[in-house]
Order: sequence, then structure tokens, then C-alpha cells
Amino acid sequence: MLAMKRVVIVGGVAGGATCAARLRRLDEQAEIVLLDRGPYVSFANCGLPYYVGNLIHDEAKLLLATPLLFKERFNIDVRVRHEVLSIDREARTVTVLDQVTGSETKEHYDALVLSPGAAPIRPRWPGIDLPGIFSLRSIPDSREMRQWIETRNPKKAVVVGGGFIGLEMAENLAHRGMQVTVIELAKQVMPPLDAEMAEYARQQLVAQGVQLVLGDGVAGFEQTDNGALVVSTQAGASFEAEMVVLSIGVRPETKLAQQAGLEIGERGGIRVDSTMRTSDPLIWAIGDAVEIKNKLTGQWELIPLAGPANRQARRAADVICGRNAHFDGALGTAVCGFFGLTVALTGATEKSLRRAGVTDYQVVYLHPNQHVGYYPGAHPIHLKLIFKKSDGLVLGAQAIGKSEVARRIDVLATAIQMKATVFDLEDTELCYAPQYGAAKDAVNMAGMIAANVLRGDVELAPWEHLNSGEAFLLDVREPNEYRAGAIPGSRNIPLGQLRAKMQELPRDQEIWINCGVGQRAYYACRVLAQHGFNTRNLSGGYQTYTVLYPAS
Amino acid sequence: MLAMKRVVIVGGVAGGATCAARLRRLDEQAEIVLLDRGPYVSFANCGLPYYVGNLIHDEAKLLLATPLLFKERFNIDVRVRHEVLSIDREARTVTVLDQVTGSETKEHYDALVLSPGAAPIRPRWPGIDLPGIFSLRSIPDSREMRQWIETRNPKKAVVVGGGFIGLEMAENLAHRGMQVTVIELAKQVMPPLDAEMAEYARQQLVAQGVQLVLGDGVAGFEQTDNGALVVSTQAGASFEAEMVVLSIGVRPETKLAQQAGLEIGERGGIRVDSTMRTSDPLIWAIGDAVEIKNKLTGQWELIPLAGPANRQARRAADVICGRNAHFDGALGTAVCGFFGLTVALTGATEKSLRRAGVTDYQVVYLHPNQHVGYYPGAHPIHLKLIFKKSDGLVLGAQAIGKSEVARRIDVLATAIQMKATVFDLEDTELCYAPQYGAAKDAVNMAGMIAANVLRGDVELAPWEHLNSGEAFLLDVREPNEYRAGAIPGSRNIPLGQLRAKMQELPRDQEIWINCGVGQRAYYACRVLAQHGFNTRNLSGGYQTYTVLYPAS
Repeated sequence: MLAMKRVVIVGGVAGGATCAARLRRLDEQAEIVLLDRGPYVSFANCGLPYYVGNLIHDEAKLLLATPLLFKERFNIDVRVRHEVLSIDREARTVTVLDQVTGSETKEHYDALVLSPGAAPIRPRWPGIDLPGIFSLRSIPDSREMRQWIETRNPKKAVVVGGGFIGLEMAENLAHRGMQVTVIELAKQVMPPLDAEMAEYARQQLVAQGVQLVLGDGVAGFEQTDNGALVVSTQAGASFEAEMVVLSIGVRPETKLAQQAGLEIGERGGIRVDSTMRTSDPLIWAIGDAVEIKNKLTGQWELIPLAGPANRQARRAADVICGRNAHFDGALGTAVCGFFGLTVALTGATEKSLRRAGVTDYQVVYLHPNQHVGYYPGAHPIHLKLIFKKSDGLVLGAQAIGKSEVARRIDVLATAIQMKATVFDLEDTELCYAPQYGAAKDAVNMAGMIAANVLRGDVELAPWEHLNSGEAFLLDVREPNEYRAGAIPGSRNIPLGQLRAKMQELPRDQEIWINCGVGQRAYYACRVLAQHGFNTRNLSGGYQTYTVLYPAS
Repeated sequence: MLAMKRVVIVGGVAGGATCAARLRRLDEQAEIVLLDRGPYVSFANCGLPYYVGNLIHDEAKLLLATPLLFKERFNIDVRVRHEVLSIDREARTVTVLDQVTGSETKEHYDALVLSPGAAPIRPRWPGIDLPGIFSLRSIPDSREMRQWIETRNPKKAVVVGGGFIGLEMAENLAHRGMQVTVIELAKQVMPPLDAEMAEYARQQLVAQGVQLVLGDGVAGFEQTDNGALVVSTQAGASFEAEMVVLSIGVRPETKLAQQAGLEIGERGGIRVDSTMRTSDPLIWAIGDAVEIKNKLTGQWELIPLAGPANRQARRAADVICGRNAHFDGALGTAVCGFFGLTVALTGATEKSLRRAGVTDYQVVYLHPNQHVGYYPGAHPIHLKLIFKKSDGLVLGAQAIGKSEVARRIDVLATAIQMKATVFDLEDTELCYAPQYGAAKDAVNMAGMIAANVLRGDVELAPWEHLNSGEAFLLDVREPNEYRAGAIPGSRNIPLGQLRAKMQELPRDQEIWINCGVGQRAYYACRVLAQHGFNTRNLSGGYQTYTVLYPAS
């Protein structure tokens, strides 16, 4: 550790502020300078949509720490409205513009940390600069949006982008009394999710009155005579609104790094090693501006999430202070809530596995209640578990439901981190009392269903071949359930009558069995398999059918 | 696997019913007979307190499966009101009393499964059989309690026993409009918890109007002239009530096993091996009647919980069907909710470690919010993490708060199962959005605090020696916080003034530092330690002080 080392940090939001504080805890002597071109450091950027929605009323709550606090508590020199214009790697200096005075200075560094974040993508669509079209990144941005809402009282809004932030924005604008239309280029909302899991979210959004335009992109914006905006799409539709929010993702802020000749990765982020060092050994980079490795696929990814950014910041500070520390990538655990629904995921999706060329995996679906059905308020969690077919290693999970969703995904994220198999999930011993869960928790059920497959107790039918005609489709629900909606072409024999009616089933054809959620079908598979039939379970049952083959 | 094996199962609630259904899934040919002396099988015994409290209105909801359903779906021969009187191990038969006809028959078995459960303890106290004194085990028990409540409209109740079920009962009786007194022999409620963690629960119970009598036992009961009950205690107090509920624990039902000469363990439960076999290789035992190994301490324990019972049932069925399966013990993960509070724990407590003679452990306390403070509705979770001092292995955790408590304990239970260390907890990547958590989740914080200790970045002060006078006590909170309540004898220097006032601190004495919850004290420890002071953090700060040294 150098005595009197001078560390300069560029960007003072999540990663930069965390890194600065950690540096001070490790090195009381170091000189630490934190530069940010904005007016604030350490603000709660994840809270901005809720500030716009007025769930958070008080702007001051978003300021987690002030320059004064940094000075008093940590003896850190924080300079806001100071923009770093360039890096001179030879001289080990950065050129800094004081936005208030307009003066430029050079700051020497022994170690430089880049934490510039990522900027909202703002395509050069016609009319994009019309008043009333917003992006959301900073407190001033959100203050502008609040003022627009409070002075103009807009009744209709368009959100461009149906990802996590877009849907959070949609909810918050609806909370402000607006009729919201969401336009998303992909054919589903929440593109990180597998399409059938996103379908649950789509259904809820539609049920809550959100207008969804999927598989279509914005062509441009115009202003009408009365000052309203018209958003026109590539498919030729147009939507009037008094307010538009762009939430089509973010792009790493790499300008400084690029100008300085630091290596940029193929996904467009600053490339770092596991110590968060860039291609210059005296320059570190952290947060949304860097590419990190996906822990499961090993692929470089942009994962702009606060949790990994914090860990990166701590590890960078450790390394700068001479410690042996590594950041070993991220799982991409994420959660999003809107309109009474929680959607969360961790680890690999089928999409990400396909992209990485992985084929050694298997999927199960289930719909367990968040707590025992006999306790008031039970509701299903729709859960998709992905595991390695060859050894049962848990690879990923996606879940959607009214509540207690993050809890199950957190357990599964921990399981994935610790390299648990589906057999471990069978044994996981989780909190149970009637209002909290079930003796067989959702996570246990997922493990049991997957383990049943791996032990050969049941085989899964390939949902994607449902309409191929190759199998005999058997529905083992009760007749009233079957009548209320069933897979076309399926034959109904309730589970309780199966032993008696076995002779009605073919022995020369695979029998693909469904029930409501998969459990009775599993029982039926076991019964019939032991009588010599060739059976497969349609995992997740009719519930899963409705999202794989949605009525549109 | 024997063809046409005959399996007899004694006891048809959680374990027995699960075992029977699993047996059928594995062996379509076996003859499976499920005997229960009560009128129902497969009922929701964990739901009974809520049926008494009328949160669950409909008794039928508690019946998870009927004998008819077992027959139709699983081809299982269920006989209720059939009591097994004895086992003839030589002849491989059980003698069964049909309680309705009074006739006795012998049933042959190839494999016998004992799942008799555990009975509420009912000491021979004077007056224990007076009307109005209840124990809760079955649907008829709870029906009787409901009738008592609905016909007599009691205003005061005494619950004997302040454990998990006792507190659930207290809440449900309060929900029925009763003023409730809880009498507990131990000096704390919830005896499985460490005392200081139970103190949070005590405070909440008192705040909610529950009268608590701790460290005192029941001496006996009398009836007054107007029909009310008087409960007198060993310390000489007496409490009038129109209703008394005994919740002082359960005792394994081992009579049958004992009579048959099966081995009974030192804790009074049926002794089984890891395949759930008793000392007779043709007899299995599962559920609340057996002793199981604590996964962490390796000690035999009685862990009457539904989750482990279910796993035992599945494993026993697997082994009976010729599979290689083992039950490897339990962590004792449990949760309980009452009066707006959730209390949960997993793994070892300090109590259980002391009992097992383990000294290689360390404790940290923290009080993180369930989600970021700036999002409305934030409240603290009081968390105690226990880990192995020599290598950081996570050993146990206890948590208390208004919500999102089970989620953190579930994550920690999974971590313990997977042999995670506190260093793994630092890296755990959990769901974060403002309404769901924090970029540094409570679990991450616990890991970081513990890892800081193991890396030598901070030492912990021994709370139990606080009053020994050996250390200089320093409180680094702001003056207004200090004035509102502080550790007696502590000196107040706010963190922000510490660098300036350092010369006021002793260099020849350990400085034990507290703040509100531990974070500022950690910063202070780091500052002072780097300036050559000998510092220790009072883990959990003043918040923890208030439960370790409660004002009584």
C-alpha cells in the first residue's frame, strides 16, 4: 500500500461513492477525490421512477449522502459539477472542467477509478427533441418530469420500451392518473425473460388497462396543434399522448475510456479483468460502464444492476489498497414490480443458454401457491426452473406472482451461487408456517419435479411439439375443469378413473399428459408407466399451456 | 422391490399420508394400508390455531385429502378410527381396534411405517381437567375450542407456554377479542431463540397488550363460583380467565414402539438410522415421533416440524421400494408470526452451540431495513448471524421484523445447507429494486460485517463484559441520538468530529465503540485503528444494547 496515495474517482453515484468510502476505510492516509459532472453524488437512481410517480414525495430522500457528509465522515474531497474531459495516462492526470466557473484544471492520480455509468439510449428519431419527451437518469430529469406532470396534468402517456424500467415507469405514470401505452420492439415485454414467462406480465398489464404495442418500434414524433405529441410506429400505428418516456435501455458511458485508448469489449462496455482493472494497470472501471462475465455462461455481458456495481466498487478499492480481491461475475438476479405483480429472475434463461450455445439443459414449470392453500390469501407463483440435464446443476429461474416471488428467486440465486443441484433443492429446509409457505415450499417442489425427471421417474413432453400430432394427448383433470378450457385434441380421463379406463389408451403411441399445473399428470404418468404405457408429462399443465399458446 | 408388498402405515397426518402417496407413485402393485385412530387423515394441523382464531372459517379447508380421494387417486386403503394396539414383530402383524365396531383384527405387513406424531404435554397439575382448559392437536380439539369461544364469549384467556404455538394461540385468541396472558417457565418467550433476540418479541407482545409472565410456572387451576378459571403460578401469582390453552410442547408418541421393544433415543423419540429404519429392519418411523440429527451439531434432537417430516416420509418410501435414499438431518428452520411481527431462525443458536460444547463461533448483530430507506414503509429487520470463527462457515441466523424476514432466513438456510461461508454471503446476488431490498441486501450486510471481522479489519467487543469497566466506551452517534438514550458511562464524540478530537481518547485502554446499529462505529474503528488506537465494535450498536440490557 502506497503511503499518501492519491485516488481520483470519476462518477459519484452507486459504484463511485461506494468505492470512495471503502477506500477510506482501508486507507486513512490516502487522498481521495470524487468528481461528478452532475449536481449530486450518491443519489438513489433506482428510486427515480417512484419519485416521478410521487410514491416518494420528498426529493431530499433520494440524496443518500452529501459532499459535506463525505468530507466529515470520510475525509473525501467531493466535487460536483466537475466534468472530467480527458485522461492523460502518461502524465497520470485528468483534465477537469469546473462547470460553474468554467475553469479547467489537471488532477494527478496514483490510481484512477472510472464509474461513469450508462446513459439512456436516445435514438435520432424524427421529433425526439420535442418538449414532453423524457429520458430518466438523474434527479433533475425526474424533477422535470414531475413539473411537466404537475403543470400540464397529462391524461395519456406513451412509454417507449417494455423492459423493467419501462414497466416501472408505466406503473408510476398510471399512478399519476395517466392512461399508458407501452411500445416495445420485441414481441414480448421484459425482453430478458423467456417469452412465455413474460406472457404472464403481458396479461396482467392488459388486465390493468395498459395498452401494449409489441413487436413494433417508434418511427418518430410529431406535435399537434394543441401541443400534444403523436407517436408513430414503424408498423404505421399512431398514438397521441401528452407525455412520452423513453426507456429503451442504456449504453455504457465509454467516451473517456475510449479517448484514453482503454480496451472496450465487444458488447460496448469498458473491458476489465477480475480485479476490475482496465487495460491500463493504474485505471480501474466499475458499474454500468463495464462489461462483466455472466457467471453461468462465462460470456461478457452488460449487466447494469446496483448489486454487482457495489461489489465491483468494493473489490476495486480492495485491490487499489493492495489486497487480493476478485469480482467473479454476476448471475443477473433482478426483480421488478408493477400493477400488483412481482417478476424476478436469476441465472440463465433459455434465451441466454441458446445464445451461448448450451444445449445440456432441461426446463420444468410449476405454479405453487406462495403459502398453503387453506390459509386466506393464497395465490400462485408461476415458476420456471432451468437445470443441467447431465447432473442436475441449477442454472436459472424465473418467477411471477402477486407476492413472495423475490423470496423464492433469492433462495434460487443463493443455490446457483453455491452450485446446488435440483437434488439439493429437494432438501432445502425453508421457513414454514401457514401464512409463510408450505411444508413443501415452492423451491422444494421445483427440486422434486426436476429430480423426478433426472431419476427417470417421469419424462417431460416437448411443449414445442404439442401440435405435431405425434402423441396422444391425455388430460387427467376433472370434467368441469376440462370443459372450462383444454388443450385442443386432448382426451379427458380424470385421474381417479384412470386405473379403470386404462384400456382406452394407446400402447403404440406416446401419451402426453396434462392436468392443471402438473401434479396430477405426474401421478398419472407414474400409474400408466408402471402398466407399460409410454408417458410424458406436459410440465406445468394447462396453466403453462395458456402462456405458451396464448389466445391472442 | 417385492411384488405385491404389503405396507401398513400407522398415522395418517403429514408424514404418514405423504409416505403412502409416495409409495404408490413408486409401486403401483403394493398393497398400502393407512390406519389412523382419529376421524381424519391428511389434515392441516399447522392451521388449527388459525381455525380457532377464525382466520380460517371453514373446517373443510383443513381437510387436505379424504379417504375417498386416497382410494380413487392412489388406490390406498385408508381406515380412520382404527387404532393400532400392538405390533407383533415376529409374526409381522399389527393388532387393530376398529373404534366404531369395537372389533379387533390383525393386519399383516411386509413393511411397517410408524407415523404416530407427538402429543401435547399435559402435566398432572391440580385442576387440569376442569372445563375450559384445552390442548390443541386435532380438528375435534379446535372445534371444541371454537364452540367454547362462540357459546361463552370469553373475555380473558391464559396461554400456558410462550413458544411458537403458544404465541400463535395468543394472537388468535386476541383476534377473538380476548385479553391474553401468556405464562412461560423460561425467562424469555420463544425458548428456541437466543434470549436477546426473543426480547424483541417480548417488547412487541407487551406493546400489543399481551400480559407476559416469564420465569414462572403453573401450579394449578381452580374454578370460581361463577365458573371462571383461576390459574395460580409457582411464584404465587394468580390469573382469572374464562379459557386456558396449554401449549407447553409435545412429546413423541412412542408407546407402540416401546411396547414392541424398538429402540428409543435419549431425547425420548423413536431412534432411526438415516434410512428412517428403526431398530427393526422391517419397521420405519417418521415425523414428530422420531429423533433426528441436527445437521450442524450432529446431536440427536426432537424437531417436530412439517418440512423435515415430509422429507423423511419420502425417503422412507424410497427405501421401502428398494431405492438408495437417506435423510441427513435437519437445520430446524422455523418461522412464526404474531401481532404484526415475523420471527424466524435457521441452524444453530448460541444456546444450541453451548449445549453441544462448541466454542469456535462468532456472533454479529445488524438491523438493516427490509428495503431501501427512501422507499415508503421501510422498517428494520433485527438479524443475528452466527458463524465459525476459524473459517467463516455460516452456522445459524435469527431474524425478527415486520416483514421480509422469512425471505432472509430462507436465503441463509440455503446458504447453511450448501456450506456457504460469510465470504459467500458478501457475494450473494439477490433481488433488488427499491420496494424489494437494497443493493446491499440484509444478507450481504451480514456477510460483510462478519467478513470484516474475519479479515481482521475490525474486532468485536464482548457485549457480556460491557459493565466490567475494562474498556473506554465511545458513542459516535450525533448528540441528539445520544441524549435520547445511551449506554451508561459512554462518551459521545460524533463520527464527523472524530478525526479532530482523537487526542481526547485513551491510547492505553481498549476503546469499545457503539453507534445506532453498528455501521458508524465500524467506520470509527477503522479510523482510530489506523491511528494506532485499540478499538472494538459493539456489534449492532445501541439497538442491540436495548435487548441485551433491557430496561425492565
